[in-house]
Amino acid sequence: MEQRGRVTIPTDMDVIAQTLSLSKRWGADAVRDCDGTDFPVELADAGMKIYATYYTTRKDNEWAKANPDEIQQMYLMTPMYTASSGELRIPLMKGLYQDMLAPNTRDDITRWWEVMDRSTGQPVPTEDWSYQGDTQEVVVKALPFHDYTVSFLAYIMWDPVHMYNALVNQWKDVEHQITFDVRQPKTREFSKKRLRAFIEEHPYVNVLRFTTFFHQFTLVFDELAREKYVDWYGYSASVSPYILEQFEQEAGYPFRPEYIIDQGYYNNQYRIPTKEFQDFQAFQRREVIKLVRELVDITHEYGREAMMFLGDHWIGTEPFLEEFQEAGLDAIVGSVGNGATLRLISDIEGVKYREGRLLPYFFPDTFHEGGDPVREARINWVTARRAILRKPIDRIGYGGYLKLALDFPEFVDYVESVCREFRELYENINGCVPYCAKRVAVLNCWGKMRAWGCHMVHHAIYFKQNYSYAGVIEALSGAPFDVQFISFGDIKENPEILKGIDVLINVGDGDTAHTGGEWWCDPQISSAVKQFVYEGGGIIGVGEPSGHLANGRFFQLANVFGVEEELGFTLGYDKYNWESHSHFITADADGEIDFGEGKKNIYALEGSTVLVEREKEVQLAVNSFGEGRAVYISGLPYSFANSRLLYRAVLWAAGDEGRLHQWFSSNYNVDVHAYPQNGKYCVVNNTYEPQSTVVYRGDESSYPLDLEANQIVWYEI
Amino acid sequence: MEQRGRVTIPTDMDVIAQTLSLSKRWGADAVRDCDGTDFPVELADAGMKIYATYYTTRKDNEWAKANPDEIQQMYLMTPMYTASSGELRIPLMKGLYQDMLAPNTRDDITRWWEVMDRSTGQPVPTEDWSYQGDTQEVVVKALPFHDYTVSFLAYIMWDPVHMYNALVNQWKDVEHQITFDVRQPKTREFSKKRLRAFIEEHPYVNVLRFTTFFHQFTLVFDELAREKYVDWYGYSASVSPYILEQFEQEAGYPFRPEYIIDQGYYNNQYRIPTKEFQDFQAFQRREVIKLVRELVDITHEYGREAMMFLGDHWIGTEPFLEEFQEAGLDAIVGSVGNGATLRLISDIEGVKYREGRLLPYFFPDTFHEGGDPVREARINWVTARRAILRKPIDRIGYGGYLKLALDFPEFVDYVESVCREFRELYENINGCVPYCAKRVAVLNCWGKMRAWGCHMVHHAIYFKQNYSYAGVIEALSGAPFDVQFISFGDIKENPEILKGIDVLINVGDGDTAHTGGEWWCDPQISSAVKQFVYEGGGIIGVGEPSGHLANGRFFQLANVFGVEEELGFTLGYDKYNWESHSHFITADADGEIDFGEGKKNIYALEGSTVLVEREKEVQLAVNSFGEGRAVYISGLPYSFANSRLLYRAVLWAAGDEGRLHQWFSSNYNVDVHAYPQNGKYCVVNNTYEPQSTVVYRGDESSYPLDLEANQIVWYEI
Repeated sequence: MEQRGRVTIPTDMDVIAQTLSLSKRWGADAVRDCDGTDFPVELADAGMKIYATYYTTRKDNEWAKANPDEIQQMYLMTPMYTASSGELRIPLMKGLYQDMLAPNTRDDITRWWEVMDRSTGQPVPTEDWSYQGDTQEVVVKALPFHDYTVSFLAYIMWDPVHMYNALVNQWKDVEHQITFDVRQPKTREFSKKRLRAFIEEHPYVNVLRFTTFFHQFTLVFDELAREKYVDWYGYSASVSPYILEQFEQEAGYPFRPEYIIDQGYYNNQYRIPTKEFQDFQAFQRREVIKLVRELVDITHEYGREAMMFLGDHWIGTEPFLEEFQEAGLDAIVGSVGNGATLRLISDIEGVKYREGRLLPYFFPDTFHEGGDPVREARINWVTARRAILRKPIDRIGYGGYLKLALDFPEFVDYVESVCREFRELYENINGCVPYCAKRVAVLNCWGKMRAWGCHMVHHAIYFKQNYSYAGVIEALSGAPFDVQFISFGDIKENPEILKGIDVLINVGDGDTAHTGGEWWCDPQISSAVKQFVYEGGGIIGVGEPSGHLANGRFFQLANVFGVEEELGFTLGYDKYNWESHSHFITADADGEIDFGEGKKNIYALEGSTVLVEREKEVQLAVNSFGEGRAVYISGLPYSFANSRLLYRAVLWAAGDEGRLHQWFSSNYNVDVHAYPQNGKYCVVNNTYEPQSTVVYRGDESSYPLDLEANQIVWYEI
Repeated sequence: MEQRGRVTIPTDMDVIAQTLSLSKRWGADAVRDCDGTDFPVELADAGMKIYATYYTTRKDNEWAKANPDEIQQMYLMTPMYTASSGELRIPLMKGLYQDMLAPNTRDDITRWWEVMDRSTGQPVPTEDWSYQGDTQEVVVKALPFHDYTVSFLAYIMWDPVHMYNALVNQWKDVEHQITFDVRQPKTREFSKKRLRAFIEEHPYVNVLRFTTFFHQFTLVFDELAREKYVDWYGYSASVSPYILEQFEQEAGYPFRPEYIIDQGYYNNQYRIPTKEFQDFQAFQRREVIKLVRELVDITHEYGREAMMFLGDHWIGTEPFLEEFQEAGLDAIVGSVGNGATLRLISDIEGVKYREGRLLPYFFPDTFHEGGDPVREARINWVTARRAILRKPIDRIGYGGYLKLALDFPEFVDYVESVCREFRELYENINGCVPYCAKRVAVLNCWGKMRAWGCHMVHHAIYFKQNYSYAGVIEALSGAPFDVQFISFGDIKENPEILKGIDVLINVGDGDTAHTGGEWWCDPQISSAVKQFVYEGGGIIGVGEPSGHLANGRFFQLANVFGVEEELGFTLGYDKYNWESHSHFITADADGEIDFGEGKKNIYALEGSTVLVEREKEVQLAVNSFGEGRAVYISGLPYSFANSRLLYRAVLWAAGDEGRLHQWFSSNYNVDVHAYPQNGKYCVVNNTYEPQSTVVYRGDESSYPLDLEANQIVWYEI
């Protein structure tokens, strides 16, 4: 086995020797700088690849200040204000961090701003409002007791990530880095020259790590410099009149701020996307990738590699969509928070290699006296490993201040073991399609575009309202399935797409993009899905699958799932189907199943089989529909027990319970993954305690096995 | 004080002497028969008024069978069936009790039935379906994997209440009583003659107790004779081609079965009523009352009184609406399940007296060995008394088999005390408007029409999904407020209506008739309510008040209430307002407040004040809006503690906390009611244990008081 490679180590001016010795221990073959560190040229010849972070959109305030018209802009909406008379004054900047944003009055505000009457949903005629620059107020000729908002463009005078880093690390006296808009004509030309200059000035750098390209995901701070709004997938900071005029021409209809503002929801992932927003995204994708390509070409011209950081200014790159293949990037790197974020990187095609930045960052929040970085590292690695075993990243790496890690020798030891383990598993499984028990497709409004990231708001951060759904995606990230993400539009375009799927999954709250909302009122969609199940397909619904009140039901697939939600409209109907049954799906569920937030008011229709009911609310039920099968689950936060439940649910829905004992561990804390092409399989303990299990091979033969905490054991098939 | 009067006693052939002696003890001045009992003529001269139950629509199968075309009909919808090919066969009677209903194929089914494609919401052309009488199936030329329902008319071959009584009392070998439709021409004339004959045959009867008039509330049984569907307010069993053709002419547009079927929701109270259904109800009201008047006139012609039972076939009478005043009825009687059902009777105008049938009925389910009828009676009386003290009924009475009660001497004693107490309180408060601390209006889509009955499905029966809302109405039924019920239509017609109100209440789930749904998108409504609050009015929202997703918010009054519901669309917005505060409203709340089912995912906006938060979900919050105030409560099941909370909320919302110590008890288990016109007030212990309290008079002077269990004490002011 290789003793070296596939690992990137951070460095800084003050840890040159230590970088060298640690890189040996960890087997690092690449070294990098970080935001707030400098690369010591002494390491240029250490036999490691050298990455340099490159900030395409910032770190040149001189340019930004000289070209204020090309500072990056974003759309913002004020809160709603109620008029109490015929005049309403709306302060634009209330609730916003003053130093971060500056309203754009340079361009024609009657064209690019919009005052909305939110009582009627109609825009206010431009002659009925005006802007007072001195007080930063919009004065509206109002209808009393109507609610109003102002949508406006603002320049980003302090790059949100720079601001975040400055705040978190308590940097003093740093100049606020202004974000400039590389898409605009002067800055575009400047940026290409700037890139060339950077490369020329850094001859020892092998890999340009773009952090990132042009448009920051939506991130805004309030007056108290607290995070005010965040959307890791948000496009609202990717706009400018220059861009929007081009978009208008391409789209063939006039642009309206409301297309981006979206009632203040900013087209976040929960919103069923409008045609206009999808048009805009498509336009941005094409234009962003075109320009990325130009920067990549320059990088290649100098014989360097171009690596993209999947974060910060990544908006418009959309790595899971077609255009991305044209970017010509060599590599992608991203932060690994859990299994789903791992797959967010490892499933990307069109690059030569994918790198995962493991946690914890070597920052003082973890690496301080009394801190326990080993614990964090262990959780992170074991969490990520599940997903890596399904679809590996090609490299791992760390970030932050190496110096801080040196004070924690146990941590250094642990990382050494991680690096070794990673290289071993990579060697065993790379280039090989692992054994997949079933082909599973998550169906929502976004499809491939939000593969693995559906249900994410701010990357892997927990939200009470989504962990019960995100848990399904997290479980899938490490499950022995061939997982796809498809959209309603995909089915509409080509219903045949369902033929390649064993089990469909629809997960989320009703009337959101995750479950589809009024898409279910399109008979082409509903019929295609019903036919799919009727003819033997499986479907799993979590939360409020197909939830949209229309035509006499809330669950549009009520007769498929055999359950419905009581919204009051069916209280008059007596409900008799409450008895719980034991079942294949719950056979390994010891103790109370954790449905997370669950769902209230779900009841079973006649003929379906309730598996779990609590306080006259169904949590888990199954139903037959024609030749097919449906499973309803009220919520499924991630846990090993719930991953097992989902695994069984998929097998049952697919009508293939007989396959259970192939590449299977009787103990659900232990996974078995097989790589028939490579003739290998592994047994892996996902917990921090020893585990005993019975391991089943592909031929259902079995043997007992004891594993140490976290242990992974490799076998030949 | 009167020792006799205001009490009705049931009797039967086998308890003549006991009826006489009990009537003396209870002070009964009226005697009645019941369903399943006969009146002993020996009691004709006992000096009591004699009530006779009269069944307008049944107990004459000879007539029904001779006139099968005039048997009462109802609209029914089959469940949804999914077509798996180009032909779908839908069995009409599956899930229905065969003996109760018979499809009406006498009239033109292509006109009166409707096959609906529930995938598209469109009716199937009549040439694309047909009916097979032998199998009772509709055969539909279907689109594969679309869902279909059949809406059809069926004759009611077994009166649902008769069926219910037969089942509950296990009557053997009873002939099924058929419901005939008194509205139809032959039966109308017959019924008038039949009424005359009945009166003439019962010369000793003083009061005709109509049980009831023409149309049964919706009540259907399934194959196993279990209740299948019930709606105490349902109009779907009040139809026939004869009636519908008249309706068509009046409405001026063609009738469609869907107007009654309503996607299978049958226009239940949760549904935001359509114009067509409201037109139909208005038509029915006028026609029903017109015919009621004819029967009442006949009754009067014979010098008898006409009393209406508020139940069974009461549909179309709508006692809270204008037309009812034209009926000419002498009296109304109804069953008293709680405070709200008491007010459902006592608030009716246009009759000379109102009688409440107290519980328990003298039926074997309670009056058996080991039964505890005193307990039931006590709960019923104390519950009803709260509401009686606000607006008294004029009489009380009991029903069932008197013989059964005789075996329970303690019960007989208790009833004697109830009768005495009732007469005393009636004497003290009758004809007097009690002290009202505030004018409160419940705002929903139904207004006056569903006064006190909003949130009822089957009279006072508990439903998990509505007790947290019905609790508000129950609390109001006994609270010292002037309570109105107004509709959005009322505000639309005359916004001035809000001028006479101190506090508005909007209670229920979003997108239901209780909270208003898209009514809030009408700026006339939303502005009127906002103006009302802004100018000093109070508003209390419970559950999902003003909940309807539109224009950037779910709570359309989010900026009034200062709270919003997280449906996923605002996850990107950081929420910082979580700290709970002590407050005037919660000052008496000892221990955990019971919000019942509560609501998930409520968060406070900036500036509002959270009073109770649980697991990052706001349960109780207050906000200022202009000069006015708003209170948000996630749910409020009925309890004495919650009644107090609501009382305080109303005072606070009205900006009148200073009034707290007027006619007030420091202990919330004790109520104080004042009757300034009569110069009386009472202090009443609502619990079954002794209570100590401090009583505050109208001038805020106070004194301590100890009360026995259930005790009521009367004072002069």
